[in-house]
Amino acid sequence: MKHTKVKDLLNSTTTLQEVNAKGWVRTFRNNQFIALNDGSTINNIQCVVDFENTPEETLKRVTTGAAVSVTGTLVESKGAGQKYEIQVKTLEILGDSDAEKFPMQPKKHSLEFLRENAHLRVRTNAFGAIMRVRSVLSFAVHKYFQEKGFVYVNTPIITGSDAEGAGEMFKVTALPFDNTPRTEDGKVNYKEDFFGKETNLTVSGQLEGETFAMALGQIYTFGPTFRAENSNTSRHLAEFWMIEPEVAFNDLDDNMDLAEDFIQYVIKYALDNCGDDLKFLEGRLLEEEKSKPQADRSEMPLLEKLNFVLENNFKRVSYTEAIDILRDSTPNKKKKFNYIINEWGADLQSEHERYLVEKHFKCPVILFDYPANIKAFYMRLNEDGKTVRAMDILFPGIGEIVGGSEREERYDVLIEKMKALEIDEEELSWYLDTRRFGSATHAGFGLGFERLVLFVTGMTNIRDVIPFPRTPGNAEF
Amino acid sequence: MKHTKVKDLLNSTTTLQEVNAKGWVRTFRNNQFIALNDGSTINNIQCVVDFENTPEETLKRVTTGAAVSVTGTLVESKGAGQKYEIQVKTLEILGDSDAEKFPMQPKKHSLEFLRENAHLRVRTNAFGAIMRVRSVLSFAVHKYFQEKGFVYVNTPIITGSDAEGAGEMFKVTALPFDNTPRTEDGKVNYKEDFFGKETNLTVSGQLEGETFAMALGQIYTFGPTFRAENSNTSRHLAEFWMIEPEVAFNDLDDNMDLAEDFIQYVIKYALDNCGDDLKFLEGRLLEEEKSKPQADRSEMPLLEKLNFVLENNFKRVSYTEAIDILRDSTPNKKKKFNYIINEWGADLQSEHERYLVEKHFKCPVILFDYPANIKAFYMRLNEDGKTVRAMDILFPGIGEIVGGSEREERYDVLIEKMKALEIDEEELSWYLDTRRFGSATHAGFGLGFERLVLFVTGMTNIRDVIPFPRTPGNAEF
Repeated sequence: MKHTKVKDLLNSTTTLQEVNAKGWVRTFRNNQFIALNDGSTINNIQCVVDFENTPEETLKRVTTGAAVSVTGTLVESKGAGQKYEIQVKTLEILGDSDAEKFPMQPKKHSLEFLRENAHLRVRTNAFGAIMRVRSVLSFAVHKYFQEKGFVYVNTPIITGSDAEGAGEMFKVTALPFDNTPRTEDGKVNYKEDFFGKETNLTVSGQLEGETFAMALGQIYTFGPTFRAENSNTSRHLAEFWMIEPEVAFNDLDDNMDLAEDFIQYVIKYALDNCGDDLKFLEGRLLEEEKSKPQADRSEMPLLEKLNFVLENNFKRVSYTEAIDILRDSTPNKKKKFNYIINEWGADLQSEHERYLVEKHFKCPVILFDYPANIKAFYMRLNEDGKTVRAMDILFPGIGEIVGGSEREERYDVLIEKMKALEIDEEELSWYLDTRRFGSATHAGFGLGFERLVLFVTGMTNIRDVIPFPRTPGNAEF
Repeated sequence: MKHTKVKDLLNSTTTLQEVNAKGWVRTFRNNQFIALNDGSTINNIQCVVDFENTPEETLKRVTTGAAVSVTGTLVESKGAGQKYEIQVKTLEILGDSDAEKFPMQPKKHSLEFLRENAHLRVRTNAFGAIMRVRSVLSFAVHKYFQEKGFVYVNTPIITGSDAEGAGEMFKVTALPFDNTPRTEDGKVNYKEDFFGKETNLTVSGQLEGETFAMALGQIYTFGPTFRAENSNTSRHLAEFWMIEPEVAFNDLDDNMDLAEDFIQYVIKYALDNCGDDLKFLEGRLLEEEKSKPQADRSEMPLLEKLNFVLENNFKRVSYTEAIDILRDSTPNKKKKFNYIINEWGADLQSEHERYLVEKHFKCPVILFDYPANIKAFYMRLNEDGKTVRAMDILFPGIGEIVGGSEREERYDVLIEKMKALEIDEEELSWYLDTRRFGSATHAGFGLGFERLVLFVTGMTNIRDVIPFPRTPGNAEF
């Protein structure tokens, strides 16, 4: 008999069928009630064991974490909390789980303990839910872009180009540290390396993505990116997944429209397709925040917060307006900010971004038209000669979730900027070809996928929304 | 006026509208007919310029590769080859393309030349089509698994585990080659490296994927994987994308069913959604093969070949049967194989796989139950004690496209195998936890995505189906 997924059993329209379920024991109560989970849903199916006619030896082996196969009749449940249950006829232990040794016992574990057991934490309710939500959000990303005719582009992970300047890079090499091949003047001879040159892990697929947008019109990337930065924070990972759409003929306004529409779409998709998981995570968050002082708790329960984002436009504010707001703000005047905002041109710190989003506007904010000298070389210079067509989207509790811009499509202006920043033109000659041949207005952005998952799941540490987090000092598994 | 995509213009149901189109000039004929492409489709829209009333200066700038914006009336075309055309009222040059310098002139380029210009080759018909097909195939992969309730898992790219044995690995490091930190006994001190240990680029997400399958039931990965092997062939890349589903409670038969159903689904999805591109690629292949001797040409045109795969079951053949067939084959008897098959236990070379698929069975073949000692440690041992529940799927023209197995779920058997192969148990302790706690039958496979794209597009070199190929000596862009 083929087994049926727990999710399908719980959604069944008929009862009194003979069914088989396979999964893992979450709990076993009164020597009679197995809460069985197979990962297809956050919900368990209750399996009622006829303990009088089941060998004592078998019952003993029904422990948390054990894999079992149960066959029996699907009936309406008399107990509270579930619609259906299985009246078990045969119970088979597929794989034992020694109660003395299995680390994921049904009790409260610290998130830190769970991180150290990243290969097992997914067997808990919370992490099962998070990983299902993450998966559904990933699909929503693809569905959104594909339905709009975007082409998915896998930009390279190993890159020979190091001029992007988005962050510190990891070296990729097949050269040995001992007896490293050297040139005559004693430098490392990368010609002897696998790719015949120095290579790194990508920090962004944008530049390569632009070359494709200038041929295919609308493209997006969705792949891993890397930062070799020693940032031990709850918002940074050394390896994370990024989504980078790039659209020919889009200007900054189109870019903001796209980003906002996109984010609302994927959140709505998660709400529509992960209701049970999100409800569970909402409860988890409420529970967790009980121990926090009122001021540190979320202003809204999770589902309300997600719906709020769907129903309200993101507030669009220029950098210049933002500086005015910040300069006049109470924490600035009372010198509560670590970095006091005195004048136009200052780079915004995460404390300022959070103030704008969480205290002042109380909704997602799109900041745009930043000073040129705090932004990347490829952003389009405004008529004022001092700001660029950049945008950052800031989310409550998360901070920056999107960074993007209209790109500098004018060859001469771009070259001048590169010269000023001493960026090697030769190295980026292929990128400049987009401006040499058939250049056009275009724009795009990058969205850190894990920050989106953080927001949607209500988790607070980015290490808890990626299967196997990579951070300084941690590359287990 | 908002511009309309060429694809939508060509699919329009009404004419005589005022429309705006933006894109790149493919050709400009008789100072009058612009073939305009914006990447949304392989098809161009013809834009008829009123050359008598257009400044000579502007007409001169309408060169191959130039970006232009045209506004005019969408009318039924009088010319052959297109349903609609635009009668241009205003023509604006957005970005020039110097005819003396733009490398992608409308003539035949060698594939090698195009590879060196990977950032521009996507502006050709063939590479535009390939990249659109690749994108649609990617989406089909996600759609197939998500609709079946699989959870997408991003297994780590940087891995601290080097025991998988699937191939040579690239080192990932933030340590310098000069003044490399050393331990007291002179070894490289990886404790000083970013992750505090030696790390590499993943060769497979399978082992991590298994830990998730034993919690979530059905999972799949789809991400980049790496091989630091000096394979300069038309079938190997140093960086490629792999799809790895893993399913709890599946045995080898279920695994074969899943792989076959999956491959047929994604091919059908491409046929249903990339008709124009595949038709173009079929024509391209026919053209290319004209110069080849009859024996080297494809037996079927591309679309017929794809439909053949949909309509015919994959032939399932045990390794033992395959050896019998090969031993008795003409090329074996006439010693035409480079590796003559004499006895059971021999590893199959690509010449043997191709013989089975292309000459003997003339259809996709699933080989299963391989000798244990030529397969990986985690594959389930059969009752015969000498074969394992492995499977490879072989495709005509491609060779191996899938490798998979039922996994050894028995802790004791797995440990014994690891000991025999001197695989470090401590290192893989987390993996062994899946067998310690609630172990169960499970199975999965890996499909090299680029090989699938090769098959579907009819291309013959794997470097032509990935945006920026990474191979020995090549990491440009």
